[in-house]
Amino acid sequence: MTQTKKNVAIIGSGLVGSLLAIYLKKYGHTITVFDRRPDIRQVEFSGRSINLAMSNRGWKALREVGIDTEIRKIGIPLDKRAIHVIGKPEYFQKYGKDGEAIWSISRGVLNKKMIDLAEQAGVEFRFEEKVWDVDLPNAQVFTGETEKGAWTAYDFDLVFGCDGAFSRVRHKMQRRSRFDYSQDFIDVGYKELTIPPNADGSHKLDKNSFHIWPRGQFMFIAMPNLDGSFTCTLFMPFEGAVSFESIRTKEDAVQFFSTYFPNVRKDIENLTHDFFKNPTSAMVTMKCFPWTYWDKVALVGDSAHAIVPFYGQGMNAGFEDIYVLNELIRTHGDDWETIFRNYQEMRKPNADAIAELSYRNFMEMSSKTADPLFLLQKKIEKRFAEKHPEKWIPAYSRVTFSDRPYAEALAEGDFQEKIMKDVMAMPNIETIWDSQKVEDKILEALKDSVH
Amino acid sequence: MTQTKKNVAIIGSGLVGSLLAIYLKKYGHTITVFDRRPDIRQVEFSGRSINLAMSNRGWKALREVGIDTEIRKIGIPLDKRAIHVIGKPEYFQKYGKDGEAIWSISRGVLNKKMIDLAEQAGVEFRFEEKVWDVDLPNAQVFTGETEKGAWTAYDFDLVFGCDGAFSRVRHKMQRRSRFDYSQDFIDVGYKELTIPPNADGSHKLDKNSFHIWPRGQFMFIAMPNLDGSFTCTLFMPFEGAVSFESIRTKEDAVQFFSTYFPNVRKDIENLTHDFFKNPTSAMVTMKCFPWTYWDKVALVGDSAHAIVPFYGQGMNAGFEDIYVLNELIRTHGDDWETIFRNYQEMRKPNADAIAELSYRNFMEMSSKTADPLFLLQKKIEKRFAEKHPEKWIPAYSRVTFSDRPYAEALAEGDFQEKIMKDVMAMPNIETIWDSQKVEDKILEALKDSVH
Repeated sequence: MTQTKKNVAIIGSGLVGSLLAIYLKKYGHTITVFDRRPDIRQVEFSGRSINLAMSNRGWKALREVGIDTEIRKIGIPLDKRAIHVIGKPEYFQKYGKDGEAIWSISRGVLNKKMIDLAEQAGVEFRFEEKVWDVDLPNAQVFTGETEKGAWTAYDFDLVFGCDGAFSRVRHKMQRRSRFDYSQDFIDVGYKELTIPPNADGSHKLDKNSFHIWPRGQFMFIAMPNLDGSFTCTLFMPFEGAVSFESIRTKEDAVQFFSTYFPNVRKDIENLTHDFFKNPTSAMVTMKCFPWTYWDKVALVGDSAHAIVPFYGQGMNAGFEDIYVLNELIRTHGDDWETIFRNYQEMRKPNADAIAELSYRNFMEMSSKTADPLFLLQKKIEKRFAEKHPEKWIPAYSRVTFSDRPYAEALAEGDFQEKIMKDVMAMPNIETIWDSQKVEDKILEALKDSVH
Repeated sequence: MTQTKKNVAIIGSGLVGSLLAIYLKKYGHTITVFDRRPDIRQVEFSGRSINLAMSNRGWKALREVGIDTEIRKIGIPLDKRAIHVIGKPEYFQKYGKDGEAIWSISRGVLNKKMIDLAEQAGVEFRFEEKVWDVDLPNAQVFTGETEKGAWTAYDFDLVFGCDGAFSRVRHKMQRRSRFDYSQDFIDVGYKELTIPPNADGSHKLDKNSFHIWPRGQFMFIAMPNLDGSFTCTLFMPFEGAVSFESIRTKEDAVQFFSTYFPNVRKDIENLTHDFFKNPTSAMVTMKCFPWTYWDKVALVGDSAHAIVPFYGQGMNAGFEDIYVLNELIRTHGDDWETIFRNYQEMRKPNADAIAELSYRNFMEMSSKTADPLFLLQKKIEKRFAEKHPEKWIPAYSRVTFSDRPYAEALAEGDFQEKIMKDVMAMPNIETIWDSQKVEDKILEALKDSVH
């Protein structure tokens, strides 16, 4: 299909904004990316971000524009979880089949690289230029020093809001009637800490693992960086008996880490300093609809669907938005109204599904890991999946290592859950869990379904 | 408890804002009410509003400050529904027991009266003064001609956001972290029309009835005014086979009303003109939390919980907020932090409950009224309630004619629904619906419960 050259504004130079710029530039459009922040390449990156886990959907979107090889150089493959339980040696859980891995990448490093690549392709970046308003029907963008000060108006043909969970573009769309919107914060916050490299530059923990210290209501994780360090994140309730609120002094912090994370406490850099210096951040699920305004404006990535990070799919979902958008551009050429309408109709159910899956993972981690019946169920599922890998693909694999729609992963997961509910109701399941009877029951349930 | 005199701002001079002003003035506080619109008493009221149905909760709140008698003079009691089915005479359904009625009141007339009463009590109104921002920790209010122009700052001790579903005060709170928020529009819109009085000033339809023309996916209602007219509202999907979108010409409008509302079509004033002149309005359920900011700011009424109008409880719920707030002021005196914390904790579950009940009523009206099994269930419930009025209080009565918490009405309704699900599963329920066996089954279910 033909593509008439357009004058395109992208609001936000984050991962989604810069990748979208690379995609659209291939069609010869004129691309201007606005960002209210300074050029990330020229400032020390302050990482208010969980390290990223790039998985199949992300790689697929990068491959499409030929930059996956370049990006792999700044990532570290993690093929397993390393689980740290108090008083026991760490143990490992492989993520998937051989060769399947998620990739640990620093958000800052990746973002700098993507902006470089976009700039090399001819994209113009306007940093420290704050977008305050968008005239939706006219694709006009207004920028200025302050919200109340003088503004500059820019005319575009298309405007993409890639400005994240607190999007200014969406904010404008939200004022229209019949715009559905929700933001729901969870009661758990997160704080980043660092484990520095050894003196020789090597990693203090296994480099190719996603490290996790599950503790029921809270947990600590660590992901490797190229320089030998680990970016760590403590997830914990804001309020309550064990909570961010309850850790008030340096002694509290040391006591907390000594009690719950003894094997790693002394490795954390400046623990008592960083714990109080680094912010405690909140996490939100944001949903909205519609995502587009006629043939003029579209939201892509977190601005359309922000999710909690417990499935590691935030960036992957945003990149998949771009991949799908690009498929639609190929099919429908200049018909941006059709492109945008199909885009939101195809992506909305999948965005809702990964939001739900991510929220459920949070609930599982924070409340179910202490439930022996839940753990038994997981053991039965694992056993069955190992014996019948083609019949039982875990939801995690569908989400992480396939490119089938998120909505399908959610539906299949629900179906498996229904089967397992019957299995767990079998008499004496605690003793017969690894019997042929249980296996047969699952096989029967799978066969019965017209699924 | 003592009450230190405070300097209080109320944003919004609507029904909730003006009643709250009357309540707070009784404690001797200095009250300033801001409204961006002109004084409603000095402009022709353009009624973008469904006529109000004042029921028990509303009256109770008015009685508390001794203005119920005054307000009753501008209302008309409706003790029954008048149901209009095509080709049959209208038939009547009594709302409750003898003497129980909802009251039809014009929003404009009521609002004017309430502002008069507040002004007489010494409340200052500042009309056409637009509030653009609120400094929450300092209870400071900023007003100005335009959002970008010069602003005036006012210092207060307390700020109440009574500025409706699209509240500016809430908008400011919403920018804070960990503020939960949702807005969900329904696919049905509404349009107001008028049936004028007879030449002698009398009503063209029964004056003491809530008139309803149920048509499945859409419906038409009419509520009486003091001047002999009826305010009518057409509820209908925005899009689809029979929808606002599908009525494009005057001929379409006449055809539509002739087909579906033949008994009343010719009574509607300027039908073909007004249908296109009057706006088609959207309806939203808005939820948020928290409702307050420390001891400084509180949201009251629609700004905290906007609901769809299908239970006639929007204003009643807002007035009940004020009643509860006042009880807490009496108990806790000057401790506004405790007052506000208790207020939101007590009211939030009830606001969520009436939102849910209102939404369900919409779903019932728009999709279930055509389902014969649903109608049979309602018939069984009605029969049982008539025989055992003390054992089976319909949810509608709990909501409309009692002051028990909305959350209780919702829970009791769910319990009744569970019983009826078993009843409807009885073999041959279509033929045995009025048998002793059915009655006994309900009695048994009610007895079994520890409810």
